Amino acid sequence: MATYGLVEYEQAAPEVRAVYEDIMATRQTDRVNNFWKALAHDPALLRRTWALVKETMQPGALDALTKELIYLAVSITNQCAYCIASHTAAARKAGMSDQMFAELSAVVALANYTNRLASGYQVEIDEPFRS
Amino acid sequence: MATYGLVEYEQAAPEVRAVYEDIMATRQTDRVNNFWKALAHDPALLRRTWALVKETMQPGALDALTKELIYLAVSITNQCAYCIASHTAAARKAGMSDQMFAELSAVVALANYTNRLASGYQVEIDEPFRS
Amino acid sequence: MATYGLVEYEQAAPEVRAVYEDIMATRQTDRVNNFWKALAHDPALLRRTWALVKETMQPGALDALTKELIYLAVSITNQCAYCIASHTAAARKAGMSDQMFAELSAVVALANYTNRLASGYQVEIDEPFRS
Amino acid sequence: MATYGLVEYEQAAPEVRAVYEDIMATRQTDRVNNFWKALAHDPALLRRTWALVKETMQPGALDALTKELIYLAVSITNQCAYCIASHTAAARKAGMSDQMFAELSAVVALANYTNRLASGYQVEIDEPFRS
Amino acid sequence: MATYGLVEYEQAAPEVRAVYEDIMATRQTDRVNNFWKALAHDPALLRRTWALVKETMQPGALDALTKELIYLAVSITNQCAYCIASHTAAARKAGMSDQMFAELSAVVALANYTNRLASGYQVEIDEPFRS
Amino acid sequence: MATYGLVEYEQAAPEVRAVYEDIMATRQTDRVNNFWKALAHDPALLRRTWALVKETMQPGALDALTKELIYLAVSITNQCAYCIASHTAAARKAGMSDQMFAELSAVVALANYTNRLASGYQVEIDEPFRS
Repeated sequence: MATYGLVEYEQAAPEVRAVYEDIMATRQTDRVNNFWKALAHDPALLRRTWALVKETMQPGALDALTKELIYLAVSITNQCAYCIASHTAAARKAGMSDQMFAELSAVVALANYTNRLASGYQVEIDEPFRS
Repeated sequence: MATYGLVEYEQAAPEVRAVYEDIMATRQTDRVNNFWKALAHDPALLRRTWALVKETMQPGALDALTKELIYLAVSITNQCAYCIASHTAAARKAGMSDQMFAELSAVVALANYTNRLASGYQVEIDEPFRS
Repeated sequence: MATYGLVEYEQAAPEVRAVYEDIMATRQTDRVNNFWKALAHDPALLRRTWALVKETMQPGALDALTKELIYLAVSITNQCAYCIASHTAAARKAGMSDQMFAELSAVVALANYTNRLASGYQVEIDEPFRS
Repeated sequence: MATYGLVEYEQAAPEVRAVYEDIMATRQTDRVNNFWKALAHDPALLRRTWALVKETMQPGALDALTKELIYLAVSITNQCAYCIASHTAAARKAGMSDQMFAELSAVVALANYTNRLASGYQVEIDEPFRS
Repeated sequence: MATYGLVEYEQAAPEVRAVYEDIMATRQTDRVNNFWKALAHDPALLRRTWALVKETMQPGALDALTKELIYLAVSITNQCAYCIASHTAAARKAGMSDQMFAELSAVVALANYTNRLASGYQVEIDEPFRS
Repeated sequence: MATYGLVEYEQAAPEVRAVYEDIMATRQTDRVNNFWKALAHDPALLRRTWALVKETMQPGALDALTKELIYLAVSITNQCAYCIASHTAAARKAGMSDQMFAELSAVVALANYTNRLASGYQVEIDEPFRS
């Protein structure tokens, strides 16, 4: 169903290949996901998006696993099928166990539940939480 | 702007007081957030929601801080002002530093960005991510 | 904070007044909500939107209260502050009691909870629910 | 595409079987939906979620059909394919006719339409709707 | 997976046929999309929705292509698979090139990114943007 | 209500000042929006986000006004109050007239309406829109 098909390495322009190679080297894999192959129709968008992902996801005050868990939590909240599938895989690779996934899912569901109660009841922000 | 005002401890029925006391004991605080005081107009909803929060948020395979980070990530994605304010406070109490918050925000923003690219480009799920 | 201010009856063009009058007659009130006064800067958008609301919200297989409950449930899910405030008032006028509101809120929260579990676990649609 | 496959009754632990039996008894059916079979990998999540659904969805100030309509309205707003399929079936079982579904859909669409107009025009909440 | 199947021209009532004919004439095509064939189970909803689409999408201060780009941007943000597929086709027919689609996607992704940063950081609206 | 206050130019580190100066030069203004002053607590996030905005929003196959209209359409769909206020201002600066805003709002509302009908009716994607 992809609008543009996927740009495979063999047919890719040099600047696209350079991004693919950096993705594979950074992630220590020999696969490039369909996501990148779809973006590759616009090499500037591919380059810019990969640079953003690479810099944002590198370990810092939060480790790689925690960042992947947050990524997956957002994707589940947005109900993005592709992102849930690919980031479940990424989180597992980073160390997410079955039990961690179950607890992540439970917290995501809970936050979606309480978010609507807070909005529906038009709850005013507590004084200590302001500023 | 709260539709029903807030149920303060002094005016609360015994079953509501019992929940408030459990909240304060569990969280080691002497405040009950406006959120709970709004729900207290329906004691069954209050009790049920608190039981859900208490059980879901207890440390397990994921520690308390990680669960708070996930909670906040969902609240930011949903753009729930009350929840962002209260859960930023909760996450800080659980140990979130300024740098952790900045990195959390960056990952949340990034996932919202890539989620739309994946959907807009109608990217098919990679074979290895199926099942 | 309204971008364009509000178009009051006194300053309104005849075609806008006609819509205001139909709103007040249909709803048996002498107030026109700010929502309509904001849209009135574009009389065609005002007329079209009011016609859509009037026809959609008239009682049919679902009665007026049920339609208002559904409207409010959507507004809470979307976390639209204006819509929650105005449609809580509208639902009350149509007969929503405090207990009905509490139960509505509980179901809205629950559906937001289970929606994410279904998406996160990538649950396949049951055969009997297909087609 | 389910990440974990489904836990069938025959292979399920006693605590999972107990939940399945309560689901079937409460709903007067001999089927357990895939949703529950996916959650069953974490028996605590299964038990907690079923208890929440059972208590929230029991008739009260709102009858069973109205609760199902609200559930479906939220699922459509969130565009959750699994939830739309399963809750369309549940609402039909509770008495939703074709015409009711059409009117529900129309109100859901309308509320999503007006929610964005209210937000886009930055409409201030009317004085009478405050508090 | 359509709940009601599709109402084909041959089996349609005269009022439904009249809408189909207006759709085909307005769009200069001999196809009616599945979307309309699904709505046709409720002829009033079909008529009302088509009238809304027809009036809203006619060129005005914004030309037809710009309106289609906005439509697609919303559909991508909402991650509506049907709408993305059908409105990508509609936008292409109105003149959207591959490069325009890439830039549209990039802006949609970016806005989803910055929306969450603004919300997460609880940024106050700048004085000059108020009113 | 900003969590961290705003980093004003006078107190800013050199790398932050450099970004502020590029923002002001690029936009031909002497103001830096609160959004950037909030992000400045994490200079890397500030730099990265500004680079993304600058590159994405430069005119290309789509002109500056069209890109601003798309940005605003997404912000309205997400109901992000800050983003709606700031990007309404940005779009006006880029040439959006009152009538353009009204038509933009109408299309955004319409797309949110039809997105839910397509999802609720579980409409299958038309054969010609596949691929």
